[in-house]
Amino acid sequence: MGKWEGFFSNETKGLKSSEIRDLLKLTEGKNVISFAGGLPDPSTFPVEDIKKITDEILETKSSSALQYTATAGVAELRKQLVSFSGLRGITGISENNVFVSVGSQEALFILFNVLVDPGDNVIVEKPTYLTALNVLRTRKPQFHGVTVTDKGPDLHALESQLKKLKSEGKRIKLMYVIPTAQNPAGTTMYLDDRKYLMELASSYDFLVVEDDAYGFLVFEGDNPPPLKALDKEGRVIYLGTFSKILSPGLRLGWIVADEEIIREVELFKQNVDLHTPSLNQFIAAEAIRRGVIQSNLPKTKALYKQKRDYMIQAMDKYFPSVVKRTKPVGGMFVFTWLPEKFNTTQLLQEAMLKGVAYVPGNSFYYDYSGANTMRINFSFPSKEEIEKGIEILGNLIKSKL
Amino acid sequence: MGKWEGFFSNETKGLKSSEIRDLLKLTEGKNVISFAGGLPDPSTFPVEDIKKITDEILETKSSSALQYTATAGVAELRKQLVSFSGLRGITGISENNVFVSVGSQEALFILFNVLVDPGDNVIVEKPTYLTALNVLRTRKPQFHGVTVTDKGPDLHALESQLKKLKSEGKRIKLMYVIPTAQNPAGTTMYLDDRKYLMELASSYDFLVVEDDAYGFLVFEGDNPPPLKALDKEGRVIYLGTFSKILSPGLRLGWIVADEEIIREVELFKQNVDLHTPSLNQFIAAEAIRRGVIQSNLPKTKALYKQKRDYMIQAMDKYFPSVVKRTKPVGGMFVFTWLPEKFNTTQLLQEAMLKGVAYVPGNSFYYDYSGANTMRINFSFPSKEEIEKGIEILGNLIKSKL
Repeated sequence: MGKWEGFFSNETKGLKSSEIRDLLKLTEGKNVISFAGGLPDPSTFPVEDIKKITDEILETKSSSALQYTATAGVAELRKQLVSFSGLRGITGISENNVFVSVGSQEALFILFNVLVDPGDNVIVEKPTYLTALNVLRTRKPQFHGVTVTDKGPDLHALESQLKKLKSEGKRIKLMYVIPTAQNPAGTTMYLDDRKYLMELASSYDFLVVEDDAYGFLVFEGDNPPPLKALDKEGRVIYLGTFSKILSPGLRLGWIVADEEIIREVELFKQNVDLHTPSLNQFIAAEAIRRGVIQSNLPKTKALYKQKRDYMIQAMDKYFPSVVKRTKPVGGMFVFTWLPEKFNTTQLLQEAMLKGVAYVPGNSFYYDYSGANTMRINFSFPSKEEIEKGIEILGNLIKSKL
Repeated sequence: MGKWEGFFSNETKGLKSSEIRDLLKLTEGKNVISFAGGLPDPSTFPVEDIKKITDEILETKSSSALQYTATAGVAELRKQLVSFSGLRGITGISENNVFVSVGSQEALFILFNVLVDPGDNVIVEKPTYLTALNVLRTRKPQFHGVTVTDKGPDLHALESQLKKLKSEGKRIKLMYVIPTAQNPAGTTMYLDDRKYLMELASSYDFLVVEDDAYGFLVFEGDNPPPLKALDKEGRVIYLGTFSKILSPGLRLGWIVADEEIIREVELFKQNVDLHTPSLNQFIAAEAIRRGVIQSNLPKTKALYKQKRDYMIQAMDKYFPSVVKRTKPVGGMFVFTWLPEKFNTTQLLQEAMLKGVAYVPGNSFYYDYSGANTMRINFSFPSKEEIEKGIEILGNLIKSKL
């Protein structure tokens, strides 16, 4: 027991160090090819534009850009986000429906605190985004999983579950869902399924927390409108992020939701950090207003499609055919299923000794199933690293068959 | 009841809209002289230096400054904060004792979540910083108050309380204290009292959360080292902020603490927002390294001393003599005591109609006492506004005597 451990709150005693994070720390300073992160390729950052914008902001608006601002966000950015949301088909909203957060992570943190009590019934995809799961876990809900197929979550299975839960007198509070370029599965739901999900949400009266982190990064196939665009009742809480389309280091995300929900989020954020950095918000507002983000997207999408293709080719070349994998239509990750006997958490230590890191897939399952899966990032590593890393990983898997 | 109210968590149902914030919203867009905020004078922002620094960072380090970074903070900033802490007499620490947060507000939020369980005994000054109190309240502790005299908290009274609590078998978890240029009282504890407080913390085995928001902004009299500089056991958790010495809009604060505590804070922050914005941290690191902050301080202190003197003179001229007030040795606020019959929350509505806003002092008392007090900011308003606003306020008070 540490010297100060007796002073820590009961609530945080559950915050154990992530096994993976500890493992990944072992790679620091070593020459390990990392497929583990979710980092954008830095060549996609519009550095020159950001520099020009920042200069002009500091020249003309430093008194506000360096000063405290409103908890809900800088007025100009909220205004720009109203029109920017239109690019995703979200209309009929005003600045009062928009809230700016420190990355979409903070939006997840605040929303799950504001909405979920211990024991509440929540639905998540299997698999789903691990850091959303981590926050949800701290709220101690009753989890219900819906399996992600290559067309998105299995809504027929979901409907059966909802019926069953209702018959047991259980009320569903919310569903957390990533309909577009799902992380980690890389799939996108069809429009019809989106409508179907909205009908389920309405019939069974639950909120939908829609994570659209990769909505602007679909490089193949259809990109139907987000659930929020189909939402007639205000039950969808939409999350966007600048991390994948401008710069993650600026830590900017946003929420589009009913004003009543925005108000509650605002009250909570007041305690968390008063407000999101002003300068960063001024930069993002200008990046939208000048079309910097919009005109940067095709380049980013082309690059990520290329890298995905490269990763897929490498997998087809080096992975044994018993390994199943997704072919993502957007985002930054390929998800793979190894034969059942594999435990990818155990395998990770060996992989790292051989010079490759990935994220074991069980982190993406609320029930820690998926022990034979792994998430592999293709946006950050170079083509050479992709080729070499996948070869090492493939050989390692083959050696264990 | 709102449409979505039934979906909000029990924990957040206590998050009521601040009466004052609602009142202050009434001033928006109106010509009201605001003594209510805690905004720095924007003329103190070293805009040209920030511009130059940002340009150079984007030129040479954009791949890291715009990318994700470590949860504990950018390595270079943590390194600079080790030496910067030396200016406040804090020595013998390494980067591992330093943690960067989204303003010191986030540090307060995380620390109180990590350290305080419902029912825990915590000590706060009467009065103390209202937003720290607001976060603490969400943790539902048992509050114990120690009155702030013109020499800081009354430590003899504290010792008696500690003895009593101990005899009742109650364990004290922590004390939240602002030893230097106290907000809102403006007082600074003598060195001997600081040593005395550290002895009490050691004997009664509680942690000390030391808020040093104004440590670099003492413009008069002694400025003894913070408690952290006297801490031999690692029981002081020190909070610093760039908001008052560089720019609040960058939202940067930091913690200096025992590694074991830093580790727990890191785990918690991982869920809150992954990390503090990278670009902002690079800017602050350079602002320290180049001495921008250090060489900007004398100007800021001179300006605030001048504004304080102006405020004090105006008060002496326009306030009736029954109103008692502090003469702050640093920071941004004068605290005043009106005759007992006054209720400054009620008075605020009238004051705003006449064109002046302030913060009613009861917000700074954990037990909402101090109904006859007010906090008045002098850093943001102009000299003309100070003169005019204090005249209006003085006349209003006189008319009620």
